[in-house]
Amino acid sequence: MGQGDGMEIVCIGAGNLATRLCVALQQCGHRVVQVFSRTEECAAALAAQLGCEPVCRLEDVTPEAPLYILSVRDQVLEEVAHGLYASLLRRVAPGRSNVGAGALFVHTAGSMPLDVLPMLRRGVFYPMQTFSKQREVPFAGLPVFIESPTDAAVLRTLAESMGCGVYEMDSASRRYLHLAAVFACNFSNHMYDVCARVLARKGIPFEVMLPLIDETARKVHALTPREAQTGPAVRYDQTVMQRHLDLLEDEDLKQIYNLLSQHIHQYTL
Amino acid sequence: MGQGDGMEIVCIGAGNLATRLCVALQQCGHRVVQVFSRTEECAAALAAQLGCEPVCRLEDVTPEAPLYILSVRDQVLEEVAHGLYASLLRRVAPGRSNVGAGALFVHTAGSMPLDVLPMLRRGVFYPMQTFSKQREVPFAGLPVFIESPTDAAVLRTLAESMGCGVYEMDSASRRYLHLAAVFACNFSNHMYDVCARVLARKGIPFEVMLPLIDETARKVHALTPREAQTGPAVRYDQTVMQRHLDLLEDEDLKQIYNLLSQHIHQYTL
Repeated sequence: MGQGDGMEIVCIGAGNLATRLCVALQQCGHRVVQVFSRTEECAAALAAQLGCEPVCRLEDVTPEAPLYILSVRDQVLEEVAHGLYASLLRRVAPGRSNVGAGALFVHTAGSMPLDVLPMLRRGVFYPMQTFSKQREVPFAGLPVFIESPTDAAVLRTLAESMGCGVYEMDSASRRYLHLAAVFACNFSNHMYDVCARVLARKGIPFEVMLPLIDETARKVHALTPREAQTGPAVRYDQTVMQRHLDLLEDEDLKQIYNLLSQHIHQYTL
Repeated sequence: MGQGDGMEIVCIGAGNLATRLCVALQQCGHRVVQVFSRTEECAAALAAQLGCEPVCRLEDVTPEAPLYILSVRDQVLEEVAHGLYASLLRRVAPGRSNVGAGALFVHTAGSMPLDVLPMLRRGVFYPMQTFSKQREVPFAGLPVFIESPTDAAVLRTLAESMGCGVYEMDSASRRYLHLAAVFACNFSNHMYDVCARVLARKGIPFEVMLPLIDETARKVHALTPREAQTGPAVRYDQTVMQRHLDLLEDEDLKQIYNLLSQHIHQYTL
């Protein structure tokens, strides 16, 4: 799928993932023709960035697109998918329903099964990355996990057109992938946040930690996380650990410190 | 301090930090003249790498060096420092004691105070990094935290000769720095380790997480960790969080998942 044969896509959603995915799709020769968000400003902001039409009512979503990407919060995904499908079906003449047979619907939620989508042609397109609206990240080299009983080839071609690595994975396995990502990304980022708070108490700039944070991430390209581990917990240096606990004022943080230290020690036994 | 005026250094210890620091010092024009470790093989391995003399008894440490770097486990630092000092003093003629007045002794332990060293000229030289013996890391650009009532200028020159950023910090503040580093490095690395275990249960290779891990680290160069946070905990998406908990079999991990999710949510309130 080159510049010439890019797909026409409707994006349902205008959050972090929707934003970064749509921008990357357009950069790779595809065309986002509409952006839907119930929040008018969100639809307008992303549509303006993409140069397409914003819509904030499902009734205004075009029934003519070959591909609909649903990238909304997990809690509302099923409801939005059903609402969209019903709305599109109402507006196509019986017997010539692009929606019923011709169009493909995919969601991007790692933790949601394929079958939250009620459509005939459906799939999952889950890029393994952390996205923020304001921060451009390359899709080239990114692993994308796809699932589609009917259209795996289409999704593979789409992902490859963006330079992504493609993995087929079913909904049951993808749940583990999403859980693993929470640890690797959200929880490790929270460790940075706690670090920043501890430093702030002494007026030390967070920047002094960046070489350490970078090397910690780089290390696991070459070593397993187990092999890469250092510090008082892996040595089970109780004197140092007790001194650290004494410095923490927040009881929850003390508990987190203790639990993680014990867990590190368990993993190395 | 250029190539021509490198320092002659005795290294007490042969662990991860000692190894990486000595190698870097020699690359920057200094000369490690002896390596001490109680474990003969450790002393021999590092000394061979540096092309210097290994010693495994404190009585064999030369009293003639201008700089002694003590890089041993926190638990034994005070004992080794006192043993070394006593041994050196016994071997120098009264009145011409290089040891008593001429030599400088520094330790490299972030969590240990300056005054575990009994010497007159003493200091701390704490590079903010995670070190493994087998993995070379650049010292250029690394923040080094120094403390010395008598010799801050010497330590600053030494750190600058290696291209490090130099910060003066007293023992009381350095404890917070070390605690912060445990969160930023050891605990975030443990999150990678848990991630690897979750993936292994489904036969998914850890490599698929590397772009996510890298971007999570890169993000906090531009955003605060708070701004960078994404995922179910920061949205407080209880449906997703419950599904994740259901996948975890290890009770300790369930507790860690719950505590960290609640803590992320607290921080964003």
